[in-house]
Amino acid sequence: MGETVAEVGEFGLIDRIRERLSGSPGVSVGVGDDAAVLAMPGETVLCTDALVEGKHFKLDWCSAADVGHRSAAASMSDIAAMGARPRALVVSLCLPADASVDWVMELVDGMSDEAAETGASLVGGDLARCDTVVVSVAAVGGVAPGRAVTRSGARPGDVVAIAGRQGWAAAGLTVLSRGFRSPRALVQAYQRPNPPYSSGPGAMEAGATSMIDVSDGLLADLRHIAVESKVLVDLESGLIPLADQLSETSSAFNVDPLTWVLGGGDDHSLVATFPSGARLPEMFTQIGRVVDLAGGPAGVSVDGRLWSGQGGGYDHFR
Amino acid sequence: MGETVAEVGEFGLIDRIRERLSGSPGVSVGVGDDAAVLAMPGETVLCTDALVEGKHFKLDWCSAADVGHRSAAASMSDIAAMGARPRALVVSLCLPADASVDWVMELVDGMSDEAAETGASLVGGDLARCDTVVVSVAAVGGVAPGRAVTRSGARPGDVVAIAGRQGWAAAGLTVLSRGFRSPRALVQAYQRPNPPYSSGPGAMEAGATSMIDVSDGLLADLRHIAVESKVLVDLESGLIPLADQLSETSSAFNVDPLTWVLGGGDDHSLVATFPSGARLPEMFTQIGRVVDLAGGPAGVSVDGRLWSGQGGGYDHFR
Repeated sequence: MGETVAEVGEFGLIDRIRERLSGSPGVSVGVGDDAAVLAMPGETVLCTDALVEGKHFKLDWCSAADVGHRSAAASMSDIAAMGARPRALVVSLCLPADASVDWVMELVDGMSDEAAETGASLVGGDLARCDTVVVSVAAVGGVAPGRAVTRSGARPGDVVAIAGRQGWAAAGLTVLSRGFRSPRALVQAYQRPNPPYSSGPGAMEAGATSMIDVSDGLLADLRHIAVESKVLVDLESGLIPLADQLSETSSAFNVDPLTWVLGGGDDHSLVATFPSGARLPEMFTQIGRVVDLAGGPAGVSVDGRLWSGQGGGYDHFR
Repeated sequence: MGETVAEVGEFGLIDRIRERLSGSPGVSVGVGDDAAVLAMPGETVLCTDALVEGKHFKLDWCSAADVGHRSAAASMSDIAAMGARPRALVVSLCLPADASVDWVMELVDGMSDEAAETGASLVGGDLARCDTVVVSVAAVGGVAPGRAVTRSGARPGDVVAIAGRQGWAAAGLTVLSRGFRSPRALVQAYQRPNPPYSSGPGAMEAGATSMIDVSDGLLADLRHIAVESKVLVDLESGLIPLADQLSETSSAFNVDPLTWVLGGGDDHSLVATFPSGARLPEMFTQIGRVVDLAGGPAGVSVDGRLWSGQGGGYDHFR
């Protein structure tokens, strides 16, 4: 497998990463200084997301490039969910000493390629030694002042809509967990999500009242919108897009496809609420309505039945 | 030890952290959304730094509050080293399931208190499960457009100067490693560095030509300036401040105090170069000169003797 990171050392590894990442437009200072410097129009949007080996990814199931794509996608999707455009990423990369340099370079390439899909750049980071691989990506993006879309603005009567694939990654994980490698499209959806980045700013421009990226599960994440907005989010299961791939595979694997669609998180689809009567942006599909609490608790219901909060999402400590 | 993070769950823990971190001035959206939103005047400076349990800190030697202070300091010091003012932090916190909630809250308080020292705020983050505690802090700061101070601007004739304590943390680590708990001032310097944050923007305003924060060792970090600027940095050991505490403890422990001063990194002092004849900002002390390469290799010398690159710094993979 060639050299290890211990052989080339921290600074040797930084030099190689730096060669890989040449100058990016609008970035005054990139990799190789104490911090990166860039011009940020509008307000700055900032987030971070960690991927832990064995927890968020298995080295058997994901190539280094996949881990790079996924880790960049997880953070950039959070930026998009505010209605903002991702601009730059920095990564804290914790690696065992015997990690191969080739593996690291492939990961950096994957991260950098994913960033390029949204016009963002990987501009710096930090390397540390750890027995477990931990890839923690922080992202910044820009949004017009006062226009960021939060979780708390949904109002009774609003339309609930989704952009991007939902349930594909969860299906891919089921396929891999049962020892299969196909259908390839589902496995690849798990290995490399394809978040609908541009739908985030698109939703903002269309007047979205609230938005979130689905990273823990559709119901679990809509619940955040419901609680923050103090409303009930009612989904209509018949409206939720279900690709042929998903229904066919669900029959073959004897799984209710709604488990994937309502509970899956790794696709980083975007769900948003829009004022009733607003024209939905092209990539969004209506899946439900926001309803007044009428004295009941905030939450999510499917076809009018309140969801208990169990089995529809992922909690990292349970 | 009270509840564990597994008992309260990821979202329960986020709620508690959020109660702790109330609104911050200038922050439009703080903890509890997909990402934070803030106004950033000037250019945006961005960096990240990871602290790994057992590698950057031992739980025996550092309280949770210490880890919080140290992790915030490590990133904010990188922002200051660009001549910028830290503005906001986000943290990826990887924790074992049996970590106590009290420990996490103490860490968050430490991080938040350290941020407040520079007028910055902790505005968000991510929680994940990992057998090893990994605290990865990303920071953003602001600097006047085009005024960021990089590592590459040192010119022959420039004065080399240092701000902040240097060698104290390394001495504190020696004290702890040998099983002692005093001198307290040195142990505390290791547990909670006190970086000279305001000296970063101060150096920028005074016309600093290059700057770096000392996190790997004084010689190792000055070497980055030398290599990036293609110069020789010549230190005069007699000019380097040596506090009485350090010389006394070095005698008691039979250590050459220059080992701590030239090799120690955890203080996050700032070293910068200034044009010859420039008035040094108050907190800076001259410790050497920048010299023309005259055909030789870029590097650092002490009292005219070229440093080999060994024993004066820290490489995380060696």
